[in-house]
Amino acid sequence: MKNKTALIISAHAADFVWRAGGAIALHAEKGYEVTVVCLSYGERGESAKLWKQDGMNLDRVKQARQQEAKTAADVLGVHDIQFLDMGDYPLDFTSEARDRLVDTIRLVQPDFMMSHSMWDPYNTDHMNTTRFVLEARMVAQAWGHNPGEKVLGAPQLYLFEPHQTEQMGWKPDTFLDITEVWQKKKAAIECMQGQEHLWQFYTNVAENRGNHFRRNSGGQAGGRNTEYAEGFQSVFPRTVDEL
Amino acid sequence: MKNKTALIISAHAADFVWRAGGAIALHAEKGYEVTVVCLSYGERGESAKLWKQDGMNLDRVKQARQQEAKTAADVLGVHDIQFLDMGDYPLDFTSEARDRLVDTIRLVQPDFMMSHSMWDPYNTDHMNTTRFVLEARMVAQAWGHNPGEKVLGAPQLYLFEPHQTEQMGWKPDTFLDITEVWQKKKAAIECMQGQEHLWQFYTNVAENRGNHFRRNSGGQAGGRNTEYAEGFQSVFPRTVDEL
Amino acid sequence: MKNKTALIISAHAADFVWRAGGAIALHAEKGYEVTVVCLSYGERGESAKLWKQDGMNLDRVKQARQQEAKTAADVLGVHDIQFLDMGDYPLDFTSEARDRLVDTIRLVQPDFMMSHSMWDPYNTDHMNTTRFVLEARMVAQAWGHNPGEKVLGAPQLYLFEPHQTEQMGWKPDTFLDITEVWQKKKAAIECMQGQEHLWQFYTNVAENRGNHFRRNSGGQAGGRNTEYAEGFQSVFPRTVDEL
Amino acid sequence: MKNKTALIISAHAADFVWRAGGAIALHAEKGYEVTVVCLSYGERGESAKLWKQDGMNLDRVKQARQQEAKTAADVLGVHDIQFLDMGDYPLDFTSEARDRLVDTIRLVQPDFMMSHSMWDPYNTDHMNTTRFVLEARMVAQAWGHNPGEKVLGAPQLYLFEPHQTEQMGWKPDTFLDITEVWQKKKAAIECMQGQEHLWQFYTNVAENRGNHFRRNSGGQAGGRNTEYAEGFQSVFPRTVDEL
Amino acid sequence: MKNKTALIISAHAADFVWRAGGAIALHAEKGYEVTVVCLSYGERGESAKLWKQDGMNLDRVKQARQQEAKTAADVLGVHDIQFLDMGDYPLDFTSEARDRLVDTIRLVQPDFMMSHSMWDPYNTDHMNTTRFVLEARMVAQAWGHNPGEKVLGAPQLYLFEPHQTEQMGWKPDTFLDITEVWQKKKAAIECMQGQEHLWQFYTNVAENRGNHFRRNSGGQAGGRNTEYAEGFQSVFPRTVDEL
Amino acid sequence: MKNKTALIISAHAADFVWRAGGAIALHAEKGYEVTVVCLSYGERGESAKLWKQDGMNLDRVKQARQQEAKTAADVLGVHDIQFLDMGDYPLDFTSEARDRLVDTIRLVQPDFMMSHSMWDPYNTDHMNTTRFVLEARMVAQAWGHNPGEKVLGAPQLYLFEPHQTEQMGWKPDTFLDITEVWQKKKAAIECMQGQEHLWQFYTNVAENRGNHFRRNSGGQAGGRNTEYAEGFQSVFPRTVDEL
Repeated sequence: MKNKTALIISAHAADFVWRAGGAIALHAEKGYEVTVVCLSYGERGESAKLWKQDGMNLDRVKQARQQEAKTAADVLGVHDIQFLDMGDYPLDFTSEARDRLVDTIRLVQPDFMMSHSMWDPYNTDHMNTTRFVLEARMVAQAWGHNPGEKVLGAPQLYLFEPHQTEQMGWKPDTFLDITEVWQKKKAAIECMQGQEHLWQFYTNVAENRGNHFRRNSGGQAGGRNTEYAEGFQSVFPRTVDEL
Repeated sequence: MKNKTALIISAHAADFVWRAGGAIALHAEKGYEVTVVCLSYGERGESAKLWKQDGMNLDRVKQARQQEAKTAADVLGVHDIQFLDMGDYPLDFTSEARDRLVDTIRLVQPDFMMSHSMWDPYNTDHMNTTRFVLEARMVAQAWGHNPGEKVLGAPQLYLFEPHQTEQMGWKPDTFLDITEVWQKKKAAIECMQGQEHLWQFYTNVAENRGNHFRRNSGGQAGGRNTEYAEGFQSVFPRTVDEL
Repeated sequence: MKNKTALIISAHAADFVWRAGGAIALHAEKGYEVTVVCLSYGERGESAKLWKQDGMNLDRVKQARQQEAKTAADVLGVHDIQFLDMGDYPLDFTSEARDRLVDTIRLVQPDFMMSHSMWDPYNTDHMNTTRFVLEARMVAQAWGHNPGEKVLGAPQLYLFEPHQTEQMGWKPDTFLDITEVWQKKKAAIECMQGQEHLWQFYTNVAENRGNHFRRNSGGQAGGRNTEYAEGFQSVFPRTVDEL
Repeated sequence: MKNKTALIISAHAADFVWRAGGAIALHAEKGYEVTVVCLSYGERGESAKLWKQDGMNLDRVKQARQQEAKTAADVLGVHDIQFLDMGDYPLDFTSEARDRLVDTIRLVQPDFMMSHSMWDPYNTDHMNTTRFVLEARMVAQAWGHNPGEKVLGAPQLYLFEPHQTEQMGWKPDTFLDITEVWQKKKAAIECMQGQEHLWQFYTNVAENRGNHFRRNSGGQAGGRNTEYAEGFQSVFPRTVDEL
Repeated sequence: MKNKTALIISAHAADFVWRAGGAIALHAEKGYEVTVVCLSYGERGESAKLWKQDGMNLDRVKQARQQEAKTAADVLGVHDIQFLDMGDYPLDFTSEARDRLVDTIRLVQPDFMMSHSMWDPYNTDHMNTTRFVLEARMVAQAWGHNPGEKVLGAPQLYLFEPHQTEQMGWKPDTFLDITEVWQKKKAAIECMQGQEHLWQFYTNVAENRGNHFRRNSGGQAGGRNTEYAEGFQSVFPRTVDEL
Repeated sequence: MKNKTALIISAHAADFVWRAGGAIALHAEKGYEVTVVCLSYGERGESAKLWKQDGMNLDRVKQARQQEAKTAADVLGVHDIQFLDMGDYPLDFTSEARDRLVDTIRLVQPDFMMSHSMWDPYNTDHMNTTRFVLEARMVAQAWGHNPGEKVLGAPQLYLFEPHQTEQMGWKPDTFLDITEVWQKKKAAIECMQGQEHLWQFYTNVAENRGNHFRRNSGGQAGGRNTEYAEGFQSVFPRTVDEL
């Protein structure tokens, strides 16, 4: 029987680590084949530390960022990581890139997808990525796009946690307990040599989301003893057999 | 081992039937003990047909409405139905009524709760009920309220479907397949002799929510063959181990 | 004296039928010349049933869909139907297509316009169409665009009902009684052979909007005896001489 | 045949003048019987100028404010003005006051109602008034409230313009041309001796809403030559026979 | 010359510490006289640890909580701390309590005020407090309330950070650098013996808000080297002489 | 020492005058070097009066509009005004235009930036400009864009007042006193010969914003005696050392 699958679309090379590393590692341990698609390396906009080095150029930055992302992906148990190399700051959303993403979506046939928040005035790449993903998801569902291929069902699209949640209008409706894979997420975070200033930040986030998990799983009466969690916002309604 | 439980708070006697009858019947079949609390009989505001009869008075209306509600509750497999008799149009939200609801919440220790939409300009009883429920839920969690009693955990509060969803700002995030209990819901609806004009309306709602269930469970590629569904909006985030 | 006119912009060939068929038929009966512009045939994304037939190709799908749309338009009394053939899933919004739409807007000089909801995460074609229409409306008002042509006034833009209203953030502020033209809308719906699964859905919608019409025209005290209605959201404020 | 009627609910004595004086005068000229209900005189919170006079007390302030309001009402052609004397800053919303308002609503059987914006962090009296009005409207529709009386239909509730529109989240969807009654509104405004600092402010508002009326009635292509207008937000959807 | 002043309204005894301890300590160091008003001790709802002790009763809980709050207030340099003892879970908002708060507001004549988020489905005391504060602020501005007293100007009302910001719809528009008073806030936090489980949580919050401060003060190009910050949402617009 | 700087991005030639003329003149007087970038001349969409003249063509309209804008800029004390000539109705947002704007941003290194509202259904140029500015601001912050140049910090982006504030969802959080430069703004407004119908409109706006300034600076108790003001909405949170 086919394994379950998940597809994470990351605007820049490191986004999937900070924002969804726990979900990736946890579902990988559960047997999901998790595919990560990085639209860019974050080579221009999220590599300040590298650009401060002498003799740096775009290719070397890309290479370094790709290497970090691959290492982090290995640590998290990612099944496949792809780099669409669409440029960053800003991403260049061509129809060719969209068709490549559609191909991947159809190949993976994900049980769920993940991407960025709907709004981000600091970083238009993030919000544009989510629009791009919604469009690709729609195309992947179209019977007339590459007729004969297996069309996509209706996977949930989760929006992972942005940097300043309130400014992005992001509201988590789902907290995932990542306590048992926290060491993997921590190790993956520490692959991101160029952004060491964010390590403690996302550790704090994971701890505080753990608190939110405990509060929502049992209130003041107890609740689960979760230490680390991640939050997600769902785009689509769930379909269930029990509340 | 203790059965699972659910607590439905209905502003007027019939609300739980139109809006959550499927969820009640389904969970009753699954072994949940479902308690319904009707804050009023809808005796003044939702009994137009009765009031048009000669010689009608408040007690007779209440009696008739209570009888309908009890019959419908039986059909749905409700474990317990309570009538707080708080008056309607408008409901009178006293601290005594709140404490009675808190008592019930603590006794039931619900796995989930249900109430009305957050906003309803047509019917302030509905939105005030939800505020009242949020307050009672908070008190039920307080260690210092009737110390020694078992305090409440953190059950989800689902908001069931209002009459004009868009005007109420209600957005369902969860669709529940009620196909297998549809006949029970239909029978319960037909207990509401005084509001026959709503029978077809809520049948249409159930069918169209079935369409939404199919769309969200599998898109154009297929999806589950659900015929009837109900929609709910969650107030609190979920805490999960798998997405 | 010139007839009144209306302009309906439909992302895919069938949208105008489900969502505005009643308004079209009613205004046609009132003497409006109603023009429908279909940006695409919905050939790739909304023709699943056709694509499941052997030997199907894009041209044959387009032809079949065009035929259905034309037949439905005839049934509804449409004055003119145009197909911009912009492709679908996704629509390709070129400046040439925009200028063609501007030309039509200026020729028609509509008393009101209609298009899709502002937001649709399931179908980005829908929301992108509305943006495209807003842009075309703006250009049609510009004195410097094709100087000498008659510029557009300030027609209302109504947003017709999307498939899952609450997910689209669509809120109707206007209900139109379509009882007297319901048979025409029903007949037009039944022209859509490829989407038979939606016939009952939109019949239910029309009945339930009829209920909303009754509720808003007279509350519990009575109200108009409307059987079928359609709902619309206005983008712009109305200008009136009496409230 | 019975005249058309309108009912304006004003938290403090002067609100109806600034915010709806044009609508009142215009509809009075059209033959509507317009009833104004002032919940208070604004005696404590909106009479600063009076309180700065020597020897002022609550009764004298109320008297002065009542006199101003009555004079303004006369100028506007108000049919009936009532003062519920509920106190202000804050208003005291008792069930007795609500029942009095319900009585008036039922007597007037208004074709439309008017009240304040839904939100006002500067002045909680305003937003609480609107909640109170919604509740009274609901009770007036209940067949079981004072059975035998004529119950209310479903009149629109318009929200008139607050002082700082954007802070109140108020969005007008209807502009009313008040050019022909502007002199009456101006005269009524000038009855408000205690708030002379607002005369120019609301003249500017009327002129600028005139601009908005012109823009929305015809865009850059022309539009009606309206000089003065008032804006209103509708709470409920309209039910129409033509768009 | 009179010192500047600030007024912090805290629903329960500890709220001012977690949410505004830094702002209090910082402004106290700048010479502001900071008054804290605790509407309750949080005796029923936020004292779980105390209630788990043998022989506990309401008075002892209140005493313990009052003692903690006073000690924390001392550490932060609070000028005056008041306890209105309105009960908690739920707070009892009487007109007498409101008048007491109005008296304090007028005495303090605060340069700014602070209170809770506008919405909190977990804890209705929080959001009801903010409504209560808005009402008291309005009354304190009324010339007719206790005529002769100095009326209030128009101080900003800041909403301090709630526990789960996104669920509360709280969006900070102002970050305050509290690095230099962090040790005081930390010491005040550690006065809260009954809620040790929140110490680390609010330390993480302060660190991550420090990150947000750095990001907003200088982006990727640098920015101020802030280590700890607090976030606030403003209710009213600012009035300035320079942007 | 370097002067402070500001950068105003105006979709069409006249926008900066109506919406930010006071802020420009005031900051120029304070020693800021204010740069204005006009993306277009508003030659097609905002020059109706010119197009009604015989023998008009696009170049002549552009020239006339450029002349007006330059004259107004001089009156306001603008340091530098640039015209990107991107076309209007609609603006053509190429990557080349973006890079030119990024160059200007980096050269100016603004202490604050200004642009249009986020939403404008009447004029998509306005809202698209703000998206374009957010993207350019992001690119200007990227170390890998033209490495070696000084990257941008994190200047505030203020959104100036649109024509119909409520329809645009624009909410001012900052009022600026422009009383002392009002004569300059008035003179600049009167440079706009082609849009004389807006002179009185924006004079009224300035007066009424003066009223809002007074209300927010001191309430009913007094407040500053401001006569003219402008309102702005901030996109990003402020970072401060005192509340």
